[in-house]
Amino acid sequence: MEKICFGIDVGGTTVKMGIFTTEAKLVDSWEIPTRKEDEGSHILEDICNEIDKKLVEKKISREDLLGVGIGIPGPITKDGTVLNCVNLGWGVFNVEEKFSQMLGGVKVKAGNDANVAALGENWQGGGIGFEDLILITLGTGVGGGVIIGDKIITGSNGAAGEIGHMPVVYDEDAEVCGCGKKGCLETVGSATGIVREAKKLLANTDIPTPLRDNSDFTCKDIFDAAKEGDKAAMIVVDKLAEYLGIAAAHIAAVTNPQVIVIGGGVSKAGKFLLDKIEEKYMEKAFKACRNAKFALATLGNDAGMYGAAALILC
Amino acid sequence: MEKICFGIDVGGTTVKMGIFTTEAKLVDSWEIPTRKEDEGSHILEDICNEIDKKLVEKKISREDLLGVGIGIPGPITKDGTVLNCVNLGWGVFNVEEKFSQMLGGVKVKAGNDANVAALGENWQGGGIGFEDLILITLGTGVGGGVIIGDKIITGSNGAAGEIGHMPVVYDEDAEVCGCGKKGCLETVGSATGIVREAKKLLANTDIPTPLRDNSDFTCKDIFDAAKEGDKAAMIVVDKLAEYLGIAAAHIAAVTNPQVIVIGGGVSKAGKFLLDKIEEKYMEKAFKACRNAKFALATLGNDAGMYGAAALILC
Repeated sequence: MEKICFGIDVGGTTVKMGIFTTEAKLVDSWEIPTRKEDEGSHILEDICNEIDKKLVEKKISREDLLGVGIGIPGPITKDGTVLNCVNLGWGVFNVEEKFSQMLGGVKVKAGNDANVAALGENWQGGGIGFEDLILITLGTGVGGGVIIGDKIITGSNGAAGEIGHMPVVYDEDAEVCGCGKKGCLETVGSATGIVREAKKLLANTDIPTPLRDNSDFTCKDIFDAAKEGDKAAMIVVDKLAEYLGIAAAHIAAVTNPQVIVIGGGVSKAGKFLLDKIEEKYMEKAFKACRNAKFALATLGNDAGMYGAAALILC
Repeated sequence: MEKICFGIDVGGTTVKMGIFTTEAKLVDSWEIPTRKEDEGSHILEDICNEIDKKLVEKKISREDLLGVGIGIPGPITKDGTVLNCVNLGWGVFNVEEKFSQMLGGVKVKAGNDANVAALGENWQGGGIGFEDLILITLGTGVGGGVIIGDKIITGSNGAAGEIGHMPVVYDEDAEVCGCGKKGCLETVGSATGIVREAKKLLANTDIPTPLRDNSDFTCKDIFDAAKEGDKAAMIVVDKLAEYLGIAAAHIAAVTNPQVIVIGGGVSKAGKFLLDKIEEKYMEKAFKACRNAKFALATLGNDAGMYGAAALILC
């Protein structure tokens, strides 16, 4: 029988589960709800039951199960210790040890979900073929991950790759981030941040723009207008690209990656956004770091599952 | 006989050479001039001759020589390839392979001098006991190195740890760096940059300060005045600390180090400067990264020799 592993991405609402072959083929994937009641104590139980059920259903023997990789939406140290995962109601415990015991000794490797997604893009996504990679995800928040030598950089406190909290805005009236600090990349680079910056621009100027016709315009509306050449939307996108270019230049001065992968919902703006970020990066980055390529993430919401599998297979 | 290795730090003027025991004891150290003529072709020759001479003098057999570590003042890739070292007149070649051949097959490991100095501080200096470290050196320029898991992060192009070229100054009239970019940390964080910023402040304000009595004041004069409570000097030091705090916060969001070590001539300002950088860092850094300790480098100009030895011994 072929050897397989599970790649599992635990989110605040659903748990995404996948079965991967050693050739990186995703042969099955499905979701279960994340039961957060009772301090999230049922989550690992539910996943464990799903794995057992699936092994029976697929007639996979325990000997053919190489391991289970799991991405967690919170900080996690190199040895697999979760440091309070508020998204799941979890406190401090070693999730690798605990889950391995629950699975009867199967190998378990765990990582932060954003870092694991970066590993997924490195293994089978937009950064395939590059061992030194940065992922920047622009979504509801801004996250990311740092991969060096095909491995996740975890950091001393599980907080490496917290790209959303790079202090890029210096203005006196910089917005306060959810983390409590002022001027984080997330305040200007997340979907809500981009819309807020656009609304500020419209309030502070008289630039005519179709965005004024819809008080509920979205991030996508801004990019669509910018692609049509709308001046106000272009200003917003250029400023966004500048902040991202600066952040990428900082990251590059630290780790000098081969490729910078842009993911998350905002990255649906595609090559239009990617080219603008790259242009700003080339202005801001140290000469010897300008070899970095820019790429779009390709795995979408599956990146976490892929990366979790890579924790076992790579 | 005890096993030993050589730790060698090649500078633009002198080559510092040290003999280390496996217990990290520096048993002998000396310098030779760096002969840069003829495209630096005599440099490795000279070092090779010194090693041979010293082995004879110290009655050390070839079998007891574990290897030679060498720091180079230019970019160098993971496999030991120097990518044009203008400081030495070198082009592109694999210095590890070439030097090992010259030494009759002895193991040679090479690294960029600033990165190697970071490894030295990690091994036996201000960052001893911490496997995840950043070194920021404030001297004629601003340099540094990134150590993760007790290993140097080299980057895809040998340009990791180029901390001096992080784009921290956004002002329209930001200074142009030696690298050609505007607003690099080096333009405000090097000894000359600090003096220039002080002179700008004096030219643009009427703040009374003893610094006005000496048109040739140095970086040390600024710190001495600041320590005495001089207002103008304090403004300069606070602004410097803010830029360094911002840079450190960026670095921390990427790699989440355990300790940030400050070295170079400017760090002779000691705990006074260190405390100010730490204060700004705590404002700018992501919560989960505030566990980072701040420390002064302790190896001074020997850091490169120590780090070069660590390339062999660790």
